[in-house]
Amino acid sequence: MSAYELSTAVAVAAAITEGHTTARQVVTAALDRIGRLDGRVGAFTDVVAARALAKADAQDAALSGGAKPGPLTGVPFAVKNLIDIAGLPTRAGSKINRERPPAERDGALVRRLEAAGAILVGALNMGEYAYDFTGENVHDGDAHNPHALDHMTGGSSGGSGAALAAGMVPLTLGSDTNGSIRVPAAFCGCFGLKPTYGRLTRAGSFPFVGSLDHLGPLARSVTDLALAYDVMQGPDPDDPVATLRPAEPVLPHLDAGIDGLRIAVAGGHFARGGGPDAFAAVARAAEVLGARGTVELPEAHRARAAAYLITAAEGATLHLDRLRTRPQDFDPAVRDRLIAGAMIPAPHVERAQRFRRWYRARVLELFETVDVILAPATPCRAPKGGQTHFVLDGVTLPVRANIGVFTQPISFIGLPVVAAPIRLDAGLPLGVQVIAAPWQEDLVLRVARHLERTGVSTAPIAELA
Amino acid sequence: MSAYELSTAVAVAAAITEGHTTARQVVTAALDRIGRLDGRVGAFTDVVAARALAKADAQDAALSGGAKPGPLTGVPFAVKNLIDIAGLPTRAGSKINRERPPAERDGALVRRLEAAGAILVGALNMGEYAYDFTGENVHDGDAHNPHALDHMTGGSSGGSGAALAAGMVPLTLGSDTNGSIRVPAAFCGCFGLKPTYGRLTRAGSFPFVGSLDHLGPLARSVTDLALAYDVMQGPDPDDPVATLRPAEPVLPHLDAGIDGLRIAVAGGHFARGGGPDAFAAVARAAEVLGARGTVELPEAHRARAAAYLITAAEGATLHLDRLRTRPQDFDPAVRDRLIAGAMIPAPHVERAQRFRRWYRARVLELFETVDVILAPATPCRAPKGGQTHFVLDGVTLPVRANIGVFTQPISFIGLPVVAAPIRLDAGLPLGVQVIAAPWQEDLVLRVARHLERTGVSTAPIAELA
Repeated sequence: MSAYELSTAVAVAAAITEGHTTARQVVTAALDRIGRLDGRVGAFTDVVAARALAKADAQDAALSGGAKPGPLTGVPFAVKNLIDIAGLPTRAGSKINRERPPAERDGALVRRLEAAGAILVGALNMGEYAYDFTGENVHDGDAHNPHALDHMTGGSSGGSGAALAAGMVPLTLGSDTNGSIRVPAAFCGCFGLKPTYGRLTRAGSFPFVGSLDHLGPLARSVTDLALAYDVMQGPDPDDPVATLRPAEPVLPHLDAGIDGLRIAVAGGHFARGGGPDAFAAVARAAEVLGARGTVELPEAHRARAAAYLITAAEGATLHLDRLRTRPQDFDPAVRDRLIAGAMIPAPHVERAQRFRRWYRARVLELFETVDVILAPATPCRAPKGGQTHFVLDGVTLPVRANIGVFTQPISFIGLPVVAAPIRLDAGLPLGVQVIAAPWQEDLVLRVARHLERTGVSTAPIAELA
Repeated sequence: MSAYELSTAVAVAAAITEGHTTARQVVTAALDRIGRLDGRVGAFTDVVAARALAKADAQDAALSGGAKPGPLTGVPFAVKNLIDIAGLPTRAGSKINRERPPAERDGALVRRLEAAGAILVGALNMGEYAYDFTGENVHDGDAHNPHALDHMTGGSSGGSGAALAAGMVPLTLGSDTNGSIRVPAAFCGCFGLKPTYGRLTRAGSFPFVGSLDHLGPLARSVTDLALAYDVMQGPDPDDPVATLRPAEPVLPHLDAGIDGLRIAVAGGHFARGGGPDAFAAVARAAEVLGARGTVELPEAHRARAAAYLITAAEGATLHLDRLRTRPQDFDPAVRDRLIAGAMIPAPHVERAQRFRRWYRARVLELFETVDVILAPATPCRAPKGGQTHFVLDGVTLPVRANIGVFTQPISFIGLPVVAAPIRLDAGLPLGVQVIAAPWQEDLVLRVARHLERTGVSTAPIAELA
């Protein structure tokens, strides 16, 4: 099994379709690599080897029989363990949920990916109940950054970033409430798409904050990201929030380039409070993209505060009974955040919601003058595992609470974003958020593709030997 | 000016249209009666005599000139002082709001009534910021029940009930968040319509709880109620909550009778916790209407609790800045309720909202088997002014918090209701709620009209000498 075969989903599907390899060979290689490396990486919480191999054999047999291959034929993938996998309890990073009955069927996005030929190989590590930015988990062990194992993956979709950076699979799914796809994409140096709120069905997943939760793909190439996104799009009656709009395929236009796009850099809140590397990464992307000028998302710092309030209160609402009856079974740090959320006075949350409508309207006005906005994904590179504080802009701050300083004001109003990896040097990667108006996933993917094509964004597999 | 002329809106309009009297005579009589009685009743906080007389003269002149009279030609009316009147600050029962600039134009419903020929004569007393069930007001003095001046009017639209019972005007407007139209209608012995949530525009009124506030008419006859309702219906771009449906006039079908209607009495929560008179009034109505059986609104007691939580929290959100800066200028009892609301944890309110969706779905299912549901409007007749406790079903309870025990679970999900007055004896009146599924104001008005036609519901003017 040569390296290229696991390098991208497109390459895997092509190699199988063209008879250079088989789904069984690809899946076996993925399972081998997981088995060999995951003791150090901690990306997976479950590996469904028998299921994956059976599916691979069935595909190989079908292809031999002349069946038409799907666009993701034989592509191994894995999902954050808050997405249902038939036969497993959906743990959502928690201890308590492991006692739930096994899921009766796969989550909707798993079904859509498998319908396109992809093959699920397992469930990925995550911060407890997704209330996390680090990728650390007291129940399952921390996920480790494959580019430097003593560093964080970022979270909460830590396993989703780590499995890609470790070259275990070319495609993963994560969820993003305040940054949980974009942060691990940045820290682990891969691409992550947080689509418009409501774009991808969340049916068959364990929620965190209903009004902020998004599911989305992570990958090591923009084409893979777009391909996976395209096969997952479309309405789903099982998710009341999922849009009714039909799928709007992006892949055919992915290489349309950026001519005519008005691209600007986010100023104000997004230009301070981070380390110089974070802004250097944005500057690098801005230069290649010919970005002009800056735009200011008004009151973005309040958007972050409001996102915090709504997250804590809605999260606490979801977990209130568990907090009452089984507080000892939570990660103590998550429990503290949820208990604090349970005590937030309702008028604060109500006002946060009102502000949200105001802020959304103001930001949408910005998109009358620009098409795409660039901002840092994180304020710095991945901190060390267990690190509790860092210094940003001369101020010592708690790590957990401040990793999402630049992601929260974007997801707060459901804008589509690609987190694109930037390597300034031989050190750990950084990420840039490529942001557009609602429903314009095509723009953020096109711009990310341009960054990739020009070599500014790359997502190499870590050297783990 | 003979008594009939102020007795109903229909009679007034007919007498003017047919030349038996003039708008000036009618308005003058109304102003005289207000001037003579309101010192004892306390229904009005503002009388706009000059405006009303000018409007009356203009109407008389137009009619003499051959203009077509509107359906409410020359009908004096008054509105709860949370509805804007051009040139007056909209006080909403408060001290603080009196410092607001005068309203630049009338509220939408005032404009619609006047477009139909009605003539505004003043603004009506109400409980502070509508957070009230008694009709008592520490700033403006209490409204007194014209049928027994030492008894409450009920609230918060206390002046709206009292002005009718005192024969000052044949038509008033009130607002109802948890019962504030239905309670004074019951205590003062008149008809009140709380329409479906979203049916009547609230543009140009001071809010209390956006997700529960309704405006609606009170009158001494069902025909007047329907007539006023019909001219006030229809979409209004100035109120984002107002329905987009066009007006669905009720008046043409008002006397269609009740044949074929499936009418039931509300059991469970609505059949206990009140005095025997309250249930006797419902039984009287049920008998005349041929009601069959009972239906149970599931978890109605929780609906009431949830309505309380949402009311307190949303009300506190609205008033938070005033509570912080001017606590001393509130009615102390209202302030206490609002401060308590400001401290309700957000998850309780969130859960109340979730319960609300569940409860609404269950109650809507009931309307597959019945068309109209009857329930008491209040648990007893009007308590004495200043009375703080009463005994219901053997339990001593605070008056203020428990007057709305039967109204709250209905407005909580926005159902249309007519409160119809019932006189069991020579004592104070009681009220029955006639309830239907959303948007079926026609049914509740038809049923109330049947109660009126059969003499079960009457709304005589109090003998005030």
